[in-house]
Formats: sequence, C-alpha cells, structure tokens
Amino acid sequence: MRIRVVNPNTTVAMTETIGRAAAAVAGPGTLVEAVTPTMGPASIESHYEEALAVPGLLEQVALGEQEGVDAYVVACFGDPGLDAAREIATGPVIGIAEAGFHAAAMLGRRFGVVTTLARTTGRAHELAERYGFASLVTEVRACEVAVLALDDPASGARELIVEECRAVVAGGADAVVLGCAGMAELCAEVSRAVGVPVVDGVAAATVLAESLVRLGLGTGKCGEYAPPPPKPVTGLLAGFRRDQPADATIGVAA
Amino acid sequence: MRIRVVNPNTTVAMTETIGRAAAAVAGPGTLVEAVTPTMGPASIESHYEEALAVPGLLEQVALGEQEGVDAYVVACFGDPGLDAAREIATGPVIGIAEAGFHAAAMLGRRFGVVTTLARTTGRAHELAERYGFASLVTEVRACEVAVLALDDPASGARELIVEECRAVVAGGADAVVLGCAGMAELCAEVSRAVGVPVVDGVAAATVLAESLVRLGLGTGKCGEYAPPPPKPVTGLLAGFRRDQPADATIGVAA
Amino acid sequence: MRIRVVNPNTTVAMTETIGRAAAAVAGPGTLVEAVTPTMGPASIESHYEEALAVPGLLEQVALGEQEGVDAYVVACFGDPGLDAAREIATGPVIGIAEAGFHAAAMLGRRFGVVTTLARTTGRAHELAERYGFASLVTEVRACEVAVLALDDPASGARELIVEECRAVVAGGADAVVLGCAGMAELCAEVSRAVGVPVVDGVAAATVLAESLVRLGLGTGKCGEYAPPPPKPVTGLLAGFRRDQPADATIGVAA
Amino acid sequence: MRIRVVNPNTTVAMTETIGRAAAAVAGPGTLVEAVTPTMGPASIESHYEEALAVPGLLEQVALGEQEGVDAYVVACFGDPGLDAAREIATGPVIGIAEAGFHAAAMLGRRFGVVTTLARTTGRAHELAERYGFASLVTEVRACEVAVLALDDPASGARELIVEECRAVVAGGADAVVLGCAGMAELCAEVSRAVGVPVVDGVAAATVLAESLVRLGLGTGKCGEYAPPPPKPVTGLLAGFRRDQPADATIGVAA
Amino acid sequence: MRIRVVNPNTTVAMTETIGRAAAAVAGPGTLVEAVTPTMGPASIESHYEEALAVPGLLEQVALGEQEGVDAYVVACFGDPGLDAAREIATGPVIGIAEAGFHAAAMLGRRFGVVTTLARTTGRAHELAERYGFASLVTEVRACEVAVLALDDPASGARELIVEECRAVVAGGADAVVLGCAGMAELCAEVSRAVGVPVVDGVAAATVLAESLVRLGLGTGKCGEYAPPPPKPVTGLLAGFRRDQPADATIGVAA
Amino acid sequence: MRIRVVNPNTTVAMTETIGRAAAAVAGPGTLVEAVTPTMGPASIESHYEEALAVPGLLEQVALGEQEGVDAYVVACFGDPGLDAAREIATGPVIGIAEAGFHAAAMLGRRFGVVTTLARTTGRAHELAERYGFASLVTEVRACEVAVLALDDPASGARELIVEECRAVVAGGADAVVLGCAGMAELCAEVSRAVGVPVVDGVAAATVLAESLVRLGLGTGKCGEYAPPPPKPVTGLLAGFRRDQPADATIGVAA
Repeated sequence: MRIRVVNPNTTVAMTETIGRAAAAVAGPGTLVEAVTPTMGPASIESHYEEALAVPGLLEQVALGEQEGVDAYVVACFGDPGLDAAREIATGPVIGIAEAGFHAAAMLGRRFGVVTTLARTTGRAHELAERYGFASLVTEVRACEVAVLALDDPASGARELIVEECRAVVAGGADAVVLGCAGMAELCAEVSRAVGVPVVDGVAAATVLAESLVRLGLGTGKCGEYAPPPPKPVTGLLAGFRRDQPADATIGVAA
Repeated sequence: MRIRVVNPNTTVAMTETIGRAAAAVAGPGTLVEAVTPTMGPASIESHYEEALAVPGLLEQVALGEQEGVDAYVVACFGDPGLDAAREIATGPVIGIAEAGFHAAAMLGRRFGVVTTLARTTGRAHELAERYGFASLVTEVRACEVAVLALDDPASGARELIVEECRAVVAGGADAVVLGCAGMAELCAEVSRAVGVPVVDGVAAATVLAESLVRLGLGTGKCGEYAPPPPKPVTGLLAGFRRDQPADATIGVAA
Repeated sequence: MRIRVVNPNTTVAMTETIGRAAAAVAGPGTLVEAVTPTMGPASIESHYEEALAVPGLLEQVALGEQEGVDAYVVACFGDPGLDAAREIATGPVIGIAEAGFHAAAMLGRRFGVVTTLARTTGRAHELAERYGFASLVTEVRACEVAVLALDDPASGARELIVEECRAVVAGGADAVVLGCAGMAELCAEVSRAVGVPVVDGVAAATVLAESLVRLGLGTGKCGEYAPPPPKPVTGLLAGFRRDQPADATIGVAA
Repeated sequence: MRIRVVNPNTTVAMTETIGRAAAAVAGPGTLVEAVTPTMGPASIESHYEEALAVPGLLEQVALGEQEGVDAYVVACFGDPGLDAAREIATGPVIGIAEAGFHAAAMLGRRFGVVTTLARTTGRAHELAERYGFASLVTEVRACEVAVLALDDPASGARELIVEECRAVVAGGADAVVLGCAGMAELCAEVSRAVGVPVVDGVAAATVLAESLVRLGLGTGKCGEYAPPPPKPVTGLLAGFRRDQPADATIGVAA
Repeated sequence: MRIRVVNPNTTVAMTETIGRAAAAVAGPGTLVEAVTPTMGPASIESHYEEALAVPGLLEQVALGEQEGVDAYVVACFGDPGLDAAREIATGPVIGIAEAGFHAAAMLGRRFGVVTTLARTTGRAHELAERYGFASLVTEVRACEVAVLALDDPASGARELIVEECRAVVAGGADAVVLGCAGMAELCAEVSRAVGVPVVDGVAAATVLAESLVRLGLGTGKCGEYAPPPPKPVTGLLAGFRRDQPADATIGVAA
Repeated sequence: MRIRVVNPNTTVAMTETIGRAAAAVAGPGTLVEAVTPTMGPASIESHYEEALAVPGLLEQVALGEQEGVDAYVVACFGDPGLDAAREIATGPVIGIAEAGFHAAAMLGRRFGVVTTLARTTGRAHELAERYGFASLVTEVRACEVAVLALDDPASGARELIVEECRAVVAGGADAVVLGCAGMAELCAEVSRAVGVPVVDGVAAATVLAESLVRLGLGTGKCGEYAPPPPKPVTGLLAGFRRDQPADATIGVAA
C-alpha cells in the first residue's frame, strides 16, 4: 500500500517532519511518501495562503494518480482542497484536521483543540462543524507560535502548547487535538506532560487512510465527488485530468 | 462608489451577463465593473474547478485594491475564495450565494434554492450552514443544465428552472434563490412565472455591497480577517500583497 | 421610494433620533418618514411592553399601505410585530435586529451584540435563532442603561457601550451590533473607539429595505404571509384591513 | 387551586368548549375558569390576529392577578403573549402548544402535529424550536379547516384530522399533538381512530399548570421575567400593572 | 391511581427518601409506592453502575405490570433503562432528569443543573440533548458530594448545592434542576436560599406521571416502543415478559 | 496486538460470523478474538434486549482486562454499554455503529444507513446525534429482516438490503452503512451491487481499534471515563472491578 502525505506548503523541512510522523505509525507493508508542492506559500496561516496552496496540492494528487498511489493525506490543519482532491483521486483522501477530530471523538465525550495562531481558530471551528464534530469540541485555543517557529526551541512552543492543553483539559475535554502538522513530533511529549490522550492529525490521518484502503473503501463517486467534467482551464494545472494519460503536461502553464 | 463584480470563471460572455445584471440594480453614482480573471476554468461545476478559480479571483481583488475599488462581489454561487478575498480587501466582499440567502431570508420564513447540476447542491447546503441559514433552507434542487448552456435557448433552461422553482414553492418556501450567476438575466421572467419572490444573487450582492459601503462598514480586521502575514509564495500571485506597492509583479510567476 | 420607519414606542424624541439615523444613510431619491404610534408604551424593555406596542405599530403600517409606502422599518430591537406587519404590507418590512444581524454577518465570521438591559438579552438570542444567526452570535451583553436614558449624557451610556463592545471584541467577535434603536446616533463614535465595525440596526434596516425595493422584492405572499383572512375584530384596529378602502375607521375602538 | 384558562379570541362558544376540556381533566379541588377577552379577533389564524389578541389576553391575566388566580393557560396554539403574561403573573403560565409538545415528548421519541390552516404551520415549527422540541417534531400537517368550522359537522373536520394523524403516524411519529384549542373535544375520538396517543393541548396545559402549582413552582423572576418596569402606556391597558392596587383602571383607555 | 417510583440503586434508605418526596406531591387518590431492586449497585455515579442498575429496575417494572401499576418513575438522574422500561410498561414511564428538565423549561427561558460528581455531567448534557433541551440548559455544575453522602450533614451538601445554584443563577438561568434523586428533600430549603425556582426531579416526575395517566396518555406502541419480540434470554430476567402470565419465573436465573 | 470483538448477544453462530469479518481486515500481527457473553438475549432488536445484553458484555471486557486485551469492539449496532465499557477498559473501545459512521463520514458529504427492523431506527439516529453525525446522515432505512434471519437465504435479506441501499443512494448519500453486525459478510456483495462504498461496522471497528492502539491512544481517563468508584454491587458482576485481582468472582452472583 502506498500513501502520499502532501504537505501543502513549500517548506521542505516541514515536509520531512511530517513524513517522519507518518512513517512512524504506518503498518508493515505500507509505503509512506511525503511530498512538497512546486508552488504555494512557505506556510499556511490565513485563508489567502490556504487558497494559494491548493493548486500545488492538487498537482501532487494528480501526479499520484498517474503513479498508482492508494490514498492521500492533506497535511495542513485547514484541510485545504480536500473536496477538490477527493474528486480527482480514486482512493481515500484524508485531511489532518478531519483525522484528528475523528480519532479524538472515539476517546471520550468531548475534546479540545490547540492550534498555532488565533486567526486560524475560525477555520478549525468551521471544519468541526463540517465534519459533524461541532458539539464535541469544547474549545479551540491558540498558542500564538507561528507555524515555522514550532520547531525552533527558542519559540518555547512545547511549553506553550502544554499550557494550552492543560487549559483545555481543565475545561472538561477528555482529549486534545494538536492543530498543526508542524506539531506532529511534539505530540508524544505533550501527551506525557498533560496526562490525557493528545492526537496528532498527521499520524491519525495516516492510519485512517491505511484503514480505509484495507477496508476497500474510497470516496463515493456517484454524485458530488464524481470526477470533474472535462473543460478548458487557463493557466493553472491546465493539462491535468485524472482520466488523461500520464504524459499530460503537468503544472503551471504559461 | 466603485464596485468590482468578479466572475471567477474565464468565460467573457458570462462576465458580460453578470455585469448587466449588476449594473441594472446599482444606485445612481455607483460604478459597477465586471471583470474576468486571467487564469482558471471556463465554468465552475466542481470543487476542483472552484479551487482552480480562486487564484485568478484573488488577482482581481488585489488589482482592485491598487485601483481604489470600494467593494467586491464574487459572482459564482459557490462563493469561492470569499474568506481569502476578505483578508486582502479593505472594503466589503460579498458572495452571490451569501447575498441571495440574506435577501431571501428577509422575505418570509423559509426559502429554497434552484441550482444547475446536482453535484453542486452539497456546496450550496454547506454555504447555507456556514452563513447561518441551514434551518431556513427548505431544499436545494437542480435543473441539470450546465452553466454555459443556461443562455442557450435550446437547453430549455428557463422552463426547467421555472419547474424546479414551482416544486420549491409547493414544498413550503416563501421565496426562491437562483443558484448560479449565469441565471441572473432569467430571474425576472422566472419570478413572474412562479408568483413568489425569486432572488438573483448577482443583483442581491451588488445592492448589499453598496449598502455596506453606504453604512461605512467593511470586514472586521482585528482577528481572522486581518491581512495575511508577509511570507514567501512560490509561483501563484507571488508578487501580490495588498500592503505592497502597486508596481509589484502580478499573476503567475515562472 | 418611500420608506416608513416606525418607532414602536410613543416617545417622539426617540422617533426623531431614529429618523435622523435613517435619513443619513438613505440613497438619493428615497423619502424616509419616521412615525410614532398613537398608542403603546413610552419605551420597550419587556415582553409586556413589546406586546402592547404592536397594535400601534400595525396601525402605522396599515396607514402606510393606504398612503403608498414602499417599505417599512420596525425600529425596536425586539422586532415586535414583524410577522404581523409582513402579512398586511405589500412591500418589504425589516426589523432592526434582523437588519443589524444581517449586516454584521457579512463582516466576518461571528459578531456580538451590546444591548440596554440584561432582561432583553433573551429576546435578542431568540431573534438570532429565528433569523438563523444563533451560531454566528458570540454573546449578547447589556450596558444596563435604560432606553430613555441613552441620550442623557449623565447616564454614561457612551462609555458603558464602548466598554461592553470591547469585551465583545475580546471574546472573538469580528463586529458588534448595537441592540437598541436609541443607540443609533452613538454608533459612529463607538465604532471609532472600538476599532471594529459597529452596526446600528436603524441605518442597516433602512438601506436593506431600500435594497429590497430596488431589487423588486417583497414578502412572499403564497403561504404564511398572505393577507390575514377577513374576520370580525373587537376593539383594537377593528376597522383596519389592507384590502379595505382608505376611509376605514382607524385605531382603538370604544 | 384556581386555574384561569384564557381563550385569546372573542368567540364565546369556543371558550365554552375549551372550558369543558380543561375541567374534564382537572384534579379534585381545582377550580377551572375559562374566560373570554373583551377585545381581539373572533379567531386566530394569522400573525396579525395573534398580535391583536394579546392585549385582551393580558387584560385577563392582569385581572386574574387581582383575584388570586394560581395559574393560567393560554388556549391558542400559537401561544400568543406567553412571555408577556409570564412577566405580569406570579404563578405559572402555560401555552397549549407548549403543553402539548411537553406531553407528547414523554410518550416516545418523536411526535407530529396536526393543525388547522397551512399558514399556521410556520408558527408551530417556531414554537417547537423555541421550547426545544424541533428535533422531536417529525412534521406539522394542516387539515385546512378554519378554526370556527371545527365544530361544524359539515366541515368534515373529524375525518380530515384523523386522516392527517394517520399520515403523521406513517411518517414515524409515536404520538400526535392537535394544533388548535378548537380541536379539544375531538381528541379522544381521534385517538381511538388512529391508535396512537393523541394530545390535546388544552387538557395537557391544564394538568401541567396544576402540576407546577402543586410543586410550588412558578416563572423565575430574577431576570427576563421580572415584572415590567413601571412606565407610561398610552391607550392599551394603560392602567394595569400587577404591582398596583386592585382598583386600578382596567382595559382600554380612551 | 398507582405510581411506582423505582430507585434503581439498592440503598433502601435512599428509596425511603425518594418515596417521601414523591408522596408529598402526589394528588389525592394516588398511591405512590417506592421500591428497591434486588440487584445492582449501592449508588449510581458512573456509566458502569448505571448499566448494572438497569436489569433490577426492569424487574421492578415487569413486576409492576403484573400487579396493575399505572405509571412508573425512574428515580436516578441518569434516567437509566428508560427506553427499555417504556417497551415493557403499558402506562407512562418518566425519568427524573426528563421530568426535572420539562418542569424547568416551563419556568422561563433557560435553566441550569446542579448535580453530584463532575463525572456525571456528560450524561446530564446527553439527556438534555436527547429530550430536546440542550439549547435551554445554561450549564451543568457539580457540587462534588457523593450520592450516599448527600444526607450526611457532615458533607456540607446543602451549602455546597446552594453555592452552585447561585452560580447557575448568576450565569443567567431562570430556574435550577437538582441532578440527583438523593437531593429531593433538600429542594425546598435550597429554593428558599437561592430565590429562584429549584426543581426536584422526583417530585416533578411523580406529578408528570400522574398528569399523563389523568390525560389517558401512555407511551406510543406503534413503533420503537412496541413490546420486545419474544426471544430466549440467558441469565438475566430470563423468565420475564410483559405478555406472559404472572407466575413466570422472576429475576436472575442460574 | 490483541483485539477482543464482543458479540453482545448469546448466539454463537453470529459470533463466528463477526469474528471472520473482523479477522479478514485485521493487520498482520493482530490477534482478533470474537467472544460470546454468558448471559443475555439471543439477539438484540429492542431497548429491553439491549439493556439485558450489557452485563454480559461488560463481563467480557472485565475478563479481557485481566488477560491483557489491547482494545475492544462492541459488535451490535446499538453500541450497547459503550460508555460503561470505556470506564473499565484501559485501551480503546469502539462500537460498530460508531465505527461505521466514522468510516462513512470520510467517504463523502453524507451517508445513509440500512438496518434490520424499523423499531431500531430511532436508536440509530440517537447514536448518530451522540457521535456528531446527525447532520451527515441522510436517512436510516429498515429492510425488516430479523437479525437471526439475515444469514438464512430464504429471508431474501441480501436482495432486500440491496434494494434499501439503492434507495439511500437515490436520496443523495455518497456511502451506506450497514446497521447490524449480522450483515458483516454481506457487505462486499452489497457494495458491488449498489456501486457506492458500503461500510460494515464490524470490519470498520476492527481497523479503527487497531489504529488507535497503533497511535498509542485510549479513552481519556481524567474525567467522565475514569474507573468507576469502588462500591458494593448486589447480584450482577458483583465481584468485578478492573482494579481487582484476576481471581475475583466472575459473573452473576446468587
């Protein structure tokens, strides 16, 4: 089984972190490949950056389809482009917010979320609502550390995240979801410090994607998620379409 | 007052239809400018196409900011890129699904929606939920006419839309929202045939954008919708940022 | 275009404030007329007073219908009698809570409300639920200044309202709605002090009513909001019915 | 114990029907008094009529307070003036829609409603939402018999109601609520015909009001439902206030 | 009329407290019988204990059916086994959380709950959601006194409950529901101290059960709550079935 | 890794079916053990039977704790005893309705459920609400085949299930969940016939339980799901407690 974990931003170091977190939980016989898009922002902390990250993410999915990838993980907590990716993929596509919420929902009655910047909490609530978990989320708290500073010890990210997680638990949550792919490698340590289950979405999405493949399940293709109708596209990913031969032009057209 | 109505697809004829519908309801002294993006799909009937339409839409908003535009209308019923556009604009940004829902909500207790393809109804429901109107929407029906066939008399679009509107009214709705910018010029005729208020989102968004400007109101900028943090972007709209000088590189970088 | 703004209480000074706020935002060519009912309470701060205000409000709408008014604004934040007024009017009828919520909903993800007395907050939440905005309202806070003391500088209303608005913004709202028609003229000043968009319902309702008239839209009349069936009424407004001649007896019968 | 059942319309024959239904279920030692207001519409089938019925209803509650009534029933399925009545009464006030919903909710998982005219179904849904029962209501169906024709055998009301009740049960409801005070005396017969519990709101409200009095419970008076603040009222019920001596002027002032 | 109040735990002293509270509010002519099951936990403060309490509770209901009981009260705030009891009873079955919520809902707009241990608050919220009252519950607070310590003056239960009730009122509730059958006899005193209506579920359930019997209403038997299909059961209550003769084997089989 | 799949009814043939379905999807190195309780009903088709199944289920979980089981699956679509089992287990416990809903939620926007008897659909909706999926469930349909007849070819179960699944897809679902453990082995065939993803809860629960173990996650134990407080229990499972030595008395006491 081959699972492609797409880091939707263009920071290769972050792709590597994500890849290690995914590989650490994948079952025997599963190949995890973490990829970086060729276009998009260095990190995603706004709706604007999320929007600009989607074409590069879709390019990686389209390439994966040509190469026989079985399932995809969208490794940014805003789950950018998830619906679009589901239309062009044949196997499952899982977002890390989606996966983190699903895993946490099975660990008790309610859970909280600790994310990076406060400006992203609205999107986290929106996704919780979309996936059905709004009534299960106690709160979404921000540690106010920028995505690319998470792995800089000088940022104090670990301590700040632990502090916010403790506040979440004090508020009645049975578990906590970490709200950024860049927090993946901090998860075990934070969990030990906090004393409740702490969920990293990257790891959760990897095992859930594997699970769906093992169950023989993929996105339903009879309605909303059927392949997009063939149609001229100017500029972006113009040559791509999953029903086209693998030698189609790839990427940003002139 | 200057309102830019952005058609997020690249079909110029549709931009013209949209522009006429917007201009017809704008108040005296309001300049309506309908624009077409330089990249993206010919029409938007899937999540994939919606995602690919957003960069071109954002380019038009970024250009508008340099030119002193007062407010923006996103003229596709999926309201693509609305949150992102709100981050980079100083004045109001209104989506046509958003506007259609708001207008219809003031005309009775509940309303229904008639859209193009059934595969887009999920997105319409999602937007209704997002804006708060889920409990006010009786149903979303599709006439199964493709976007670019709406103005082709051979498609029978007008009759099919009237039929679906009648079904919506029979189901208990006080009003109907037409779910595609391409239906703008059919609205008056459909309303006469059906006998209840029928709302075209393009016209509604135009007057609502005007209204907000007149009230001196724009997107709140203290939190989620503050301008995105400055950051390297590879490829797409790399040179753009509303806080940058007007001579910045525009569009798709190499 | 002729818009009648009905102050549902009997305090003429307040009608004048409301009239100025409405006229200040109306477009060129729109006549705004603010009216005071002939019966009802001096101000509205309870369900009891709201109920007693409705007949006088409906009298003004019924008179307006005889005089060719195009649209109505119900200028009390409890939106009293809105459904009843919609049944007897041919054009749009907009409540100021309704309008304030609609405008604020287009300015970000969520908004808060600052009202007069805490005892009115339940009604504000009920209206938010009714119009669909319950999930968008962060909180409703009270400044505990009585309606008729709002324009008395000795009440400290302005400072208290600013303080509550700041608390609302600290709670994560992108915008604030002022919850009383008597706050209309404080709105601009409060907005400057607070730094986020602050919405006055009277102004918002005026431009929204204008917008609907411009769009050719009014309340759907095919179901719940059809004119009430002709029927004997004892006492109150006994002679009124919008489908009756203009010389019908008006007001409170013996 | 003394329970006043207020028929909010002015049709005395209907008050008598309501009084019989209430008296039939009241416990030993409970005095049920059914009263008719001095002003208002002959029946209530619209928001307009509901609004005009409220002052007369409040007059009966205010009189009851002077006479030592222990609890009130508002005997119209729109529960008009319920919040206002709660402010001016010291004991419990129960609406018949409220009571019917509460009783039915204890008889299974979900219930349906059969009412008179389709134009009143929106209000029934609104009340269900307000009281918390929206998710428990399967549907609200109308038999399209006018309120004052219900007891006219020629109207076929009984058969039409049975038919709609059967449709409700086929739709998965465990019980049915009859949506008009004028259906009170048909309830037993309809229940026998349909084979599931059928609830008459008048009877249900009477026993629930009794129950609350027996438990020593009344409306909470610490916040929203405190007595309305003393204040000039022009015209309607101007002399009334529950904190005033019993010889206060009653009713409609000049 | 004969109402069986089942204390689902095996502590006889608590059954006696519950029986006194129920008898104190029952109407003339109503026989209240409080019973203790033959198996189960000494008190119920976890899901595990709730599950183990249900067979003993169902045994008491099955016995009651053989003896002609008219209605049942399930006297534990988790309402354990309520759906199962409704299937095997012919008359109404009311849980005390259910009854407390219904009573409180008629006393204002919103209410709060004060319960024993914090670990039971999740269940209280779940029941509120199930019965429709989620949006009416302001909060569920715990006094952290164990069930069997409530009547021990040394536990300070009364003072702690008063304190939590005051916090509930400060949070905007119009009434408070006490969240444990063991609090029944503290209710009047707490209510006096707090100044808002305080509801004891045992008393409320008793009068509501009486009310439904008086209305001739019981659980709907046409669908979900029809008697369970005859079927072999190993061990627990193996001989019981309400459609079997009264001499059937009762209780726990070998 | 050792996963215990508990069939909560006492029919051994059904345990074998369930065990095969679970083993078929478990990863390499995972031991699946399907067990049958020593007490309870032969199948579960009512709330009464569900309640009587829980003690036997809890006995199997308690035994598993003594034997070092890593995770549990509750293999009945009503997810009986799930909360109680989570309190006494150290590792994850997953219900098959829960698992089926989670898996289906990742396959599109909305899904439907096909279950056995219509009387169980209320419980399915209740569980969907509890887990957060109410807004994602299009409908729950029943094929009206009894649980123990599902594997009898004469029942026509396969054809009836296919027919109901097709109706679910026609209603707009992207996927279908089969609502009974007894349908596990029909799943692949049904999926092929229907053409959309069809989810068997037993298989889904098995891989999800494995996934959580692999992620190092279990139920949060800081609040609601802490081990139940030590306490006398009469009769049922009296000797069990997960914090007690392995030689404790097991099962139904005299």
